[in-house]
Amino acid sequence: MRATLMYAAEDVRVEDVADPTIQQPTDAVVRIVLSCVCGSDLWPYKSLAPTDTPRHMGHEFLGVVEDTGADVRTLKRGDVAVAPFVWADNTCAYCREGLQTSCPHGGQWGVDGVDGGQGQAARVPLADGTLVKLPVAEDSELLPDLLTLSDVLCTGYHAARTAGVGRGDTVTVIGDGAVGLSAVISARLLGAERIILMGRHRSRTDLGLTFGATDVVAERGDEGVARVRELTGGEGTRRVLECVGLKDALVQGFGVVRDGGTVSRVGAPQFTDVPFGFADFLRNITLTGGVAPARAYIEELMPHILDGAIAPGRVFDRTVALEDIADGYRAMNDREALKTLVRP
Amino acid sequence: MRATLMYAAEDVRVEDVADPTIQQPTDAVVRIVLSCVCGSDLWPYKSLAPTDTPRHMGHEFLGVVEDTGADVRTLKRGDVAVAPFVWADNTCAYCREGLQTSCPHGGQWGVDGVDGGQGQAARVPLADGTLVKLPVAEDSELLPDLLTLSDVLCTGYHAARTAGVGRGDTVTVIGDGAVGLSAVISARLLGAERIILMGRHRSRTDLGLTFGATDVVAERGDEGVARVRELTGGEGTRRVLECVGLKDALVQGFGVVRDGGTVSRVGAPQFTDVPFGFADFLRNITLTGGVAPARAYIEELMPHILDGAIAPGRVFDRTVALEDIADGYRAMNDREALKTLVRP
Repeated sequence: MRATLMYAAEDVRVEDVADPTIQQPTDAVVRIVLSCVCGSDLWPYKSLAPTDTPRHMGHEFLGVVEDTGADVRTLKRGDVAVAPFVWADNTCAYCREGLQTSCPHGGQWGVDGVDGGQGQAARVPLADGTLVKLPVAEDSELLPDLLTLSDVLCTGYHAARTAGVGRGDTVTVIGDGAVGLSAVISARLLGAERIILMGRHRSRTDLGLTFGATDVVAERGDEGVARVRELTGGEGTRRVLECVGLKDALVQGFGVVRDGGTVSRVGAPQFTDVPFGFADFLRNITLTGGVAPARAYIEELMPHILDGAIAPGRVFDRTVALEDIADGYRAMNDREALKTLVRP
Repeated sequence: MRATLMYAAEDVRVEDVADPTIQQPTDAVVRIVLSCVCGSDLWPYKSLAPTDTPRHMGHEFLGVVEDTGADVRTLKRGDVAVAPFVWADNTCAYCREGLQTSCPHGGQWGVDGVDGGQGQAARVPLADGTLVKLPVAEDSELLPDLLTLSDVLCTGYHAARTAGVGRGDTVTVIGDGAVGLSAVISARLLGAERIILMGRHRSRTDLGLTFGATDVVAERGDEGVARVRELTGGEGTRRVLECVGLKDALVQGFGVVRDGGTVSRVGAPQFTDVPFGFADFLRNITLTGGVAPARAYIEELMPHILDGAIAPGRVFDRTVALEDIADGYRAMNDREALKTLVRP
């Protein structure tokens, strides 16, 4: 089959790799119908040192079950299913408490002999735990929306949930990328009344307004902080969802959070030390979040997509064929595209 | 009156200062019966650069109300009362949600013309909001226990509360100082079943065992982390209370916390950057805590002292007269004393 490999920064190729087959009785093989490029794929796209053992890319996909191992109980050939961005048994103590990203029996796509998601097919380990059956046909118009359950919508939702967003809250979302916009959708779903979206790309923040943002702050840094404080009686907001992953964004988060409030970060941090010292200590700021256990949220969020209450697939503003995925990466990296959908 | 001034590291003097008087109708004047030296007082004791405008020391005291301003309603001359370690109106939005440390109308002891707590008396601003009446006489044997409501017990309790300690939990407490031992008391009060106390001072950890610790880990750093993991099936504990304030202690906290768990820090951080990067992000670790709004907890904790369920005053293992307070500082700094009680 054809799959996406990254050999170096800006060097993404589609090549022939081995067809997936059942290796364990708990495996399934899925023919991929839709996948996409993640904002986090852009970090290696910007920086990966040249390598002879290229990375197998992609961790967001849905498709049709083609084959199942002898122990797979919840899926059968022909089912349409979505995969969360890590695979997991969904039965261990961590999984049962909704932290499938820490499942000791699970793992990541594209490593250790497991396929990546940007290809024509994938072997899915622990298929009963990992895959969630979708009650739609493979030509459903909802597929792009449902694909966001793999990662981006659930990541935004994780930010909102771990920040404790609830009815009537005022929330700041930092970042107008696909995760930030998903965080807007999520904050709205959880009942936030006022959602201040910090971002400076007009077309993206406009989409954020249709998703439920009530205010847009285009300024960044100190100026952005001052603007949010101005909008909130000087206090900042109790909940801040940091959806970027850069240190400046997190510092901005501490700047706009109200004393006693919570900053939840879901942007993969591109730094190791968090500037979070005595002043933040005096203000009782909580820093939470982390990599999203998407699997924990799929069943909860799916009905909102099926009944049309939310349309998170609107974050996809470009579609490429698998063979053209390198251009899909480029377009996202150049900020021509917000998020690229890939049709194998 | 006599009061404690710090002129430089290791230079603590008791000198004459102006007697406190009512300046605002919301003030009270308290004759101090008991005060103490805080672990946080040791930071300037180790490092304060020589100054001609010495610091007025002390933020933990209880005493007898001697005078009240015209607007004071809840206290009268002769009442015994305890002061939390910041003063606050206790009526604003922050105070009502239990974050008196962020009260915009409040402030700290010993600055801006407000007396410190290590003296013979103090003017208490916003007395109705700040002081809590104690239902005991000024010669009560419970006074040392009740004095811990000023700061140290409430600080340990804040760690336990913000970490979310609840019935049946396993908790790690880092630090065997007075705050760490107060955190042990607090975790026990909140129903923790297993409390692992990390500390290497035998007499202190022994006291911790009588307060409710179930395990003591004397090792530090990687060795200490390994030991806690060994005690917890490899996973670490869901709740970690960091009661030191040094970077190494916080790193140790991240080392012993279970994936998805919470580290609450209440030791005043002596550093600005927290090493809290991608690996912690992948583990969904929350960092919370901060300076304790002691005022929020006093009414809740006082009954446990009055009915003898807890005896937090056992952290005081040295008593000095006010005139000898310099030796009380020295003894704590040299780790001869755990916490020094001061009788003006």
